[in-house]
Amino acid sequence: MRILVVNVNTTRSVTDAIGAQAAEAAGPGTEIVPLTPAFGAESVEGNYESYLAAVAVMETVRAHPGPYDAVIQAGYGEHGREGLQELLDVPVVDITEAAASTARFLGRRYSVVTTLDRTVPLIEERLDVAGLSARCASVRATGLPVLDLERDPRAAADAITEQALRAVADDRAEVICLGCGGMAGLAGQVAERTGVPVVDGVSAAVTIAESLVRLGLTTSKVRTYAPPRPKRLANWPPRTA
Amino acid sequence: MRILVVNVNTTRSVTDAIGAQAAEAAGPGTEIVPLTPAFGAESVEGNYESYLAAVAVMETVRAHPGPYDAVIQAGYGEHGREGLQELLDVPVVDITEAAASTARFLGRRYSVVTTLDRTVPLIEERLDVAGLSARCASVRATGLPVLDLERDPRAAADAITEQALRAVADDRAEVICLGCGGMAGLAGQVAERTGVPVVDGVSAAVTIAESLVRLGLTTSKVRTYAPPRPKRLANWPPRTA
Amino acid sequence: MRILVVNVNTTRSVTDAIGAQAAEAAGPGTEIVPLTPAFGAESVEGNYESYLAAVAVMETVRAHPGPYDAVIQAGYGEHGREGLQELLDVPVVDITEAAASTARFLGRRYSVVTTLDRTVPLIEERLDVAGLSARCASVRATGLPVLDLERDPRAAADAITEQALRAVADDRAEVICLGCGGMAGLAGQVAERTGVPVVDGVSAAVTIAESLVRLGLTTSKVRTYAPPRPKRLANWPPRTA
Amino acid sequence: MRILVVNVNTTRSVTDAIGAQAAEAAGPGTEIVPLTPAFGAESVEGNYESYLAAVAVMETVRAHPGPYDAVIQAGYGEHGREGLQELLDVPVVDITEAAASTARFLGRRYSVVTTLDRTVPLIEERLDVAGLSARCASVRATGLPVLDLERDPRAAADAITEQALRAVADDRAEVICLGCGGMAGLAGQVAERTGVPVVDGVSAAVTIAESLVRLGLTTSKVRTYAPPRPKRLANWPPRTA
Amino acid sequence: MRILVVNVNTTRSVTDAIGAQAAEAAGPGTEIVPLTPAFGAESVEGNYESYLAAVAVMETVRAHPGPYDAVIQAGYGEHGREGLQELLDVPVVDITEAAASTARFLGRRYSVVTTLDRTVPLIEERLDVAGLSARCASVRATGLPVLDLERDPRAAADAITEQALRAVADDRAEVICLGCGGMAGLAGQVAERTGVPVVDGVSAAVTIAESLVRLGLTTSKVRTYAPPRPKRLANWPPRTA
Amino acid sequence: MRILVVNVNTTRSVTDAIGAQAAEAAGPGTEIVPLTPAFGAESVEGNYESYLAAVAVMETVRAHPGPYDAVIQAGYGEHGREGLQELLDVPVVDITEAAASTARFLGRRYSVVTTLDRTVPLIEERLDVAGLSARCASVRATGLPVLDLERDPRAAADAITEQALRAVADDRAEVICLGCGGMAGLAGQVAERTGVPVVDGVSAAVTIAESLVRLGLTTSKVRTYAPPRPKRLANWPPRTA
Repeated sequence: MRILVVNVNTTRSVTDAIGAQAAEAAGPGTEIVPLTPAFGAESVEGNYESYLAAVAVMETVRAHPGPYDAVIQAGYGEHGREGLQELLDVPVVDITEAAASTARFLGRRYSVVTTLDRTVPLIEERLDVAGLSARCASVRATGLPVLDLERDPRAAADAITEQALRAVADDRAEVICLGCGGMAGLAGQVAERTGVPVVDGVSAAVTIAESLVRLGLTTSKVRTYAPPRPKRLANWPPRTA
Repeated sequence: MRILVVNVNTTRSVTDAIGAQAAEAAGPGTEIVPLTPAFGAESVEGNYESYLAAVAVMETVRAHPGPYDAVIQAGYGEHGREGLQELLDVPVVDITEAAASTARFLGRRYSVVTTLDRTVPLIEERLDVAGLSARCASVRATGLPVLDLERDPRAAADAITEQALRAVADDRAEVICLGCGGMAGLAGQVAERTGVPVVDGVSAAVTIAESLVRLGLTTSKVRTYAPPRPKRLANWPPRTA
Repeated sequence: MRILVVNVNTTRSVTDAIGAQAAEAAGPGTEIVPLTPAFGAESVEGNYESYLAAVAVMETVRAHPGPYDAVIQAGYGEHGREGLQELLDVPVVDITEAAASTARFLGRRYSVVTTLDRTVPLIEERLDVAGLSARCASVRATGLPVLDLERDPRAAADAITEQALRAVADDRAEVICLGCGGMAGLAGQVAERTGVPVVDGVSAAVTIAESLVRLGLTTSKVRTYAPPRPKRLANWPPRTA
Repeated sequence: MRILVVNVNTTRSVTDAIGAQAAEAAGPGTEIVPLTPAFGAESVEGNYESYLAAVAVMETVRAHPGPYDAVIQAGYGEHGREGLQELLDVPVVDITEAAASTARFLGRRYSVVTTLDRTVPLIEERLDVAGLSARCASVRATGLPVLDLERDPRAAADAITEQALRAVADDRAEVICLGCGGMAGLAGQVAERTGVPVVDGVSAAVTIAESLVRLGLTTSKVRTYAPPRPKRLANWPPRTA
Repeated sequence: MRILVVNVNTTRSVTDAIGAQAAEAAGPGTEIVPLTPAFGAESVEGNYESYLAAVAVMETVRAHPGPYDAVIQAGYGEHGREGLQELLDVPVVDITEAAASTARFLGRRYSVVTTLDRTVPLIEERLDVAGLSARCASVRATGLPVLDLERDPRAAADAITEQALRAVADDRAEVICLGCGGMAGLAGQVAERTGVPVVDGVSAAVTIAESLVRLGLTTSKVRTYAPPRPKRLANWPPRTA
Repeated sequence: MRILVVNVNTTRSVTDAIGAQAAEAAGPGTEIVPLTPAFGAESVEGNYESYLAAVAVMETVRAHPGPYDAVIQAGYGEHGREGLQELLDVPVVDITEAAASTARFLGRRYSVVTTLDRTVPLIEERLDVAGLSARCASVRATGLPVLDLERDPRAAADAITEQALRAVADDRAEVICLGCGGMAGLAGQVAERTGVPVVDGVSAAVTIAESLVRLGLTTSKVRTYAPPRPKRLANWPPRTA
């Protein structure tokens, strides 16, 4: 099967890292196709950029010639998954939800460790909307911007580990979710240093997408995710998409 | 003071109706500036179109030369208000929230009567995210598409009244919110025929925006709605915006 | 229009301060009529006094010859607003709810800073009953009794600022509500010293009452706030009311 | 031990019925002292009357010379219990809470069957404030005013049974609470005709009050229910109390 | 009347202490019959042991020749009460629920102080399932294993008092529940040292069971707690039960 | 990899059907080992039987010589998963949670269609405890006992389809979960007849267990699911286990 894994920012090195992580998690016979949006911000750290990413991911997938069997939106706490589900017949998996959903099988409460403090509310709201916040102990910020993660992975691992340990001790978390697509590759280290399971959202999303495809299950079209009604779109999509 | 009232769809007659409703609600000395987005769908009735509207509204406001004192996003149940709050220093009011917030002062529980069944979940989720769902008795659909509302206002009033009466009798609502920007002008009739207060979101939003401006209050910038960090945006905004 | 602003305690200097704050917030053409209850406690800091204030405010308004267009109950976290809504045809606005409702438009989470620790539960319960607690980050006490606020406004501002800063840093509040009618006049200072929007409930209530009157909206009478049924009241009201 | 059982309305025949019910439930050695408030409404069916009842009950108990070991507030869904707890050192039990708390031991979900539709929100809010609504399946109204209950007990039993049966079938209730102090004496009939346990609040309250006294437990005074601070009350209490 | 009080572990000295506590709380004419399960763990401190205790308690009660009027399950936070309610016609009271239900009458929020940190989630989940968590401020662990409680009661009282004081100061608790059947006998000391009411679950359960019996109330059999359908059980019960 | 799939009842034909369903869902290289408990009820339809199943499943797995890589508990709405997680180092997946977790990726709300009305509360409570009820629209009963499902699969499919259609129309479900291990094999038919995705819990659990094993993730041992402390068990396990 072929799975599109779509980055939410326009930084190709982040797309590459996400793609590599996805490929590592993929089963035999699964082809991972990493995609970078045709427009948007170099990193997504707030609502304006996140809404922009939502439409950029949608247009990027719409512009892809296919065929493909599933789509993964590889941004943590970002908007847009519901729109993709309307547009597509194949399963759509968001890494925020994939990580939380997987963490729930591993412990009673999980925490998310993310980048900047300002992205915490976005993640909290996406977990609420997804119906996955009941077992969320906390969303914690390292204070590191997205693009610093790949500049200094060692510092990133240190900062994530520090917040993860606090989540376990103070917030009663039993599992940690890495709260940024750009944290791909760090789960192993953090798990070793904290002694609790650490879930990478991209990896989790790959196995969930594969499972849905294998079971022949895809998005329900009876109400919320029915295809858009035929209508005129003015000046859209832009040429770049 | 000057208030921008931004439609979420690209149909100018809807913008006109919203603008007229806003002007009627405005106090002396308030100038209403109705805006139509430069791109997007002719009507917004689902997640794909709603996300597109979110960014279209944001780019439309960004492209406006100003000055202005407040901005109203005139789509019911649509995405994007959080992004506008990041971008602007002046107060931002969404009509979904304005209506619900006003209804709460008028009765113990309110219901929203909207257009298509598929938009019900969007409204429910926006009310949840806004922290305004505790007193929401129900969100009910008339089954009428947005653009049919202005084609046949009499049928629209009938359909809205029917659902409003059911909301009062079956869902224990005591107040009704008109759940679509395109329902501007119908509140009076529905109130008369149901015997309960009916809140028009555009009107409510105008008085709230005026009040915030008068009190010298605007969006907090300490965390969630801090301005976007300076960063490169690829291929954005599109020429049309 | 004419708006009655009713203090909940029997201390006239507090009534005066509330009236002055209301007048400052009022638009042109609005007349503010401050009222002191005919019976009750000199300050309201607990359930017994709050229930007494509820009936005192109701009898005070009932005894007022009128006419008036709206009524504001100017006690933070006090009982009684539901009863006023039953008795009156004009809009009724409680300052606890006005402040919270206004704060919600300014940031994702708000905190209330109030007087004594013992009043915290009353405020929490009133926000719950009003359906406004979803975005409440915390209710914090300064430890100052109500009547000390006007004796030493500088100390009051210091104590409120201290708790407000903690609410922003520790409870993730983005907006502060001044949680006592007797804090009228302090919002500006606290806003300046904390860097976040500070909402004064009396001012917020005035703009909301004016808005409801302007929009022609008033309390729904179909169920919860229907007028009391005709019946015999024994030994009531007392002569003093 | 001696327990004051305070009616919330001023109708003596209701006080008598409540007193008789309490005496029937009381253990050997318990003396029941029924009290009628010195002021207030002949029946309590809404917020205005309920707030008035709250202060009337408080003043009635304050005026009682004592001694007594516990106090029961015998109105369903009425305000005021928190104030009594501040004023008294002995345990205070509200029949709304006593019934719900007892029902919880008898089945997974309970419903309340009460008098008029307009009292439903009062009961719902009191159960919420008391932290007892999680297992409440519904609050249902018979449509009978309080004072009709004693005029035609047979019709009352019929109407209560009808709503109780619907609660079991439609709302998945497994236990019924009689939602009015004036329904004293009807539990047996309704239980027989519905086949589910029926809880009379007055009886439940008597056993709870006796238990608290026997265990030497009374209201915590560390925060919410600390005694009122010493302060001047203007024109209060009225002569009649 | 005769009440079975069933320990959840197989340590007879704990059964004796529970029995003594129950007898002390019992009214005149109540006979307490303490029972030790025929199989299971010497102390219950986790899910495996708690599930085992659930079935052990059920088989122990089933094997008892009777007659008896009520059954108390004397383990804090343990599974199984629902099964007992299916099996029996007489009232069943769990001490976790009895303590929380009683605490709710004494203050606005209560905390539970228990043994090991690992039992905290069990207690939290049982309170949730019982619909009693709305007023739970916290569940705190002393770090003491169950069997250490009786080895060194003085150290136990110290550790419980320390956590109780923190619950009052930091978690805003106003009442403390002793969160282990093995804490029988310590309530008086902790109450004296903390100044807040302290509820012993066994004592509370005895008075509730007595009250239900006196009022002629028992478990509803219409749905959740209907008797098990007749069916074949393989290899069950074991010989030892 | 090898996955134990443990039936919760002692009927071997049900174990066989579950095993076949699991094998069909399993990927290449996965060996499914179906197990029947050594003791317990022929079908599990209530709390007593469910608690018994919990310990029977645990003892059955403990008695299995291994090795194995994951364990699936194949009963819908049954107790015990938390205990298995304490006992084992490998991932444990409950089919109730697997189905709900998978359904959440396919639509906004899901309903469960189960056997008898009396099992509805068990399923509701297990979903609550698992933190998966936020998107549950309803749990509906067909009225068919477990063992009738395999006796007349056509009637079973009819009854499930009827309730599924009602869930979609009346409860706004968009996805259906088959709420009984004994419904293995019916998902395809129900999906075809309802037009919405239908999730079989056993199949979902197999893919989740495989995914966790592939990702190297297993149960967190830091708190709730730490291994039982070493202690004496009296008369346990029984000979038959």
